[in-house]
Amino acid sequence: MARQARAESRIIGLVPTMGALHEGHASLIARAKRECSPLIASIFVNPKQFGPDEDFAKYPRTFESDSEKLRQAGVDTLFAPEAAEIYPKDFSTYVHVEGLSERLEGRSRPGHFRGVTTVVMKLLQIVQPHRAYFGRKDAQQARLITQMARDLNLDSEIVVCPIVREPDRLALSSRNVYLNPEQRKAATILYRALEAAKKELEAGGRDALHLQTSLRRKLDSEPLAAVDYAEVVDAETFEPVVRVSRACYVLLAVFIGKTRLIDNLYLEPKAPESDEFMFHL
Amino acid sequence: MARQARAESRIIGLVPTMGALHEGHASLIARAKRECSPLIASIFVNPKQFGPDEDFAKYPRTFESDSEKLRQAGVDTLFAPEAAEIYPKDFSTYVHVEGLSERLEGRSRPGHFRGVTTVVMKLLQIVQPHRAYFGRKDAQQARLITQMARDLNLDSEIVVCPIVREPDRLALSSRNVYLNPEQRKAATILYRALEAAKKELEAGGRDALHLQTSLRRKLDSEPLAAVDYAEVVDAETFEPVVRVSRACYVLLAVFIGKTRLIDNLYLEPKAPESDEFMFHL
Repeated sequence: MARQARAESRIIGLVPTMGALHEGHASLIARAKRECSPLIASIFVNPKQFGPDEDFAKYPRTFESDSEKLRQAGVDTLFAPEAAEIYPKDFSTYVHVEGLSERLEGRSRPGHFRGVTTVVMKLLQIVQPHRAYFGRKDAQQARLITQMARDLNLDSEIVVCPIVREPDRLALSSRNVYLNPEQRKAATILYRALEAAKKELEAGGRDALHLQTSLRRKLDSEPLAAVDYAEVVDAETFEPVVRVSRACYVLLAVFIGKTRLIDNLYLEPKAPESDEFMFHL
Repeated sequence: MARQARAESRIIGLVPTMGALHEGHASLIARAKRECSPLIASIFVNPKQFGPDEDFAKYPRTFESDSEKLRQAGVDTLFAPEAAEIYPKDFSTYVHVEGLSERLEGRSRPGHFRGVTTVVMKLLQIVQPHRAYFGRKDAQQARLITQMARDLNLDSEIVVCPIVREPDRLALSSRNVYLNPEQRKAATILYRALEAAKKELEAGGRDALHLQTSLRRKLDSEPLAAVDYAEVVDAETFEPVVRVSRACYVLLAVFIGKTRLIDNLYLEPKAPESDEFMFHL
């Protein structure tokens, strides 16, 4: 299909997902639908991006309602392969982005990003989209995939889309269903901590260590929250910054009970070299 | 160019080389020319596939005569990028075939195959050929690239072509120019050892250890030769076999002075499960 669509100068779009679709996915699909035809969505719960102690087995699988949502959203083709199709018996080739993959999420989840970049590479090769859409909630993942696409000269543009939030501002995630009502309420602490960091930045705060200390203090005020990391990093390298003076992410990973949630605040200079920022939450 | 040629249903061919072209390359190009249009050749001495103590700096570079040869052979486009174009400053993504990459050549040349698979992936993405041609002298390399193409769903067929030899049966290699006349004569020991192994196999010899012992003895009879490895391996996995009973390679890596040469004999069963073989030297 790709070859024919490309021959006809149509713009092929891909939205790769692990299913358990929510409004975050819906926003990716809506944007892709506006920009592409044909539009392909994939559902594949990728075993290679889960650690041995992670939630692969219990990851929510809602295939029937997912495929109905995709159909209603105007997706032309749903690609939902079996694991044995994606990883045949003697599968042994991996794509790895060095450095970037080892930090933050990569440190907390060894092997995770190697699994992500490998499966995304495969999906991009199978579908051959002109554009592939990813959510900014997984900021490091989006950065890695962009780096992979550039480094390996992939003929697909990586499009990164804004975070979608619940009315109480919790970032949408397929893992939110793991939260009981009490935990669900506690989970808003991630957004509230980021909002406090934004206020500190708006008031002129530029010291990354001070910001991180404030974030920790705020997160620690929630008894059900256990911080994995709370860092201010360069938006290109994902290395810690000392002073906020360029595009940065404030990144959070927090356990609420056994559920690990991530969220972030993206700071974009208003002009090159500017010390004034736009804040994307 | 790829997108347009693909849209016009033409068969794009790629012959990737490191230059210093010889009759081995010429045979790849002649075959690709028969099967493809347009035909692209690349010349890139890939720094990432040379170890720190290897011959990257002195690897023969004969760009003017190479490009003239390619023009005369009917190559439509020569792609000869600079290293900084292929590996920009913060390049950090690698393709690695686990297992296969660690054995034999990979053990003798750590990191070599990671450099090979990464650059071949890039070339395949840039050129988007329907077919890419590689020589069977580098049998393990050809096997790895075939595995990579399958594992990562690349839209390119990997075509592996026979070894081309000098009149005295030395396998053609850009590194043969390193040999002085005495070494050049000694270098024929690789072929003579493979020929002896072929005779042993034709006489019914199936014991891999016995074959390896005969190979070693033969190679050691040449005072200028220092064996790196001489093994009988499964043609799929490149793991040692005990008994020759399926498709196998007899693989040699031998130093003649400081020059490391490789050669191989490919055994193909005459029929599935057959114990009779065709021998490709």
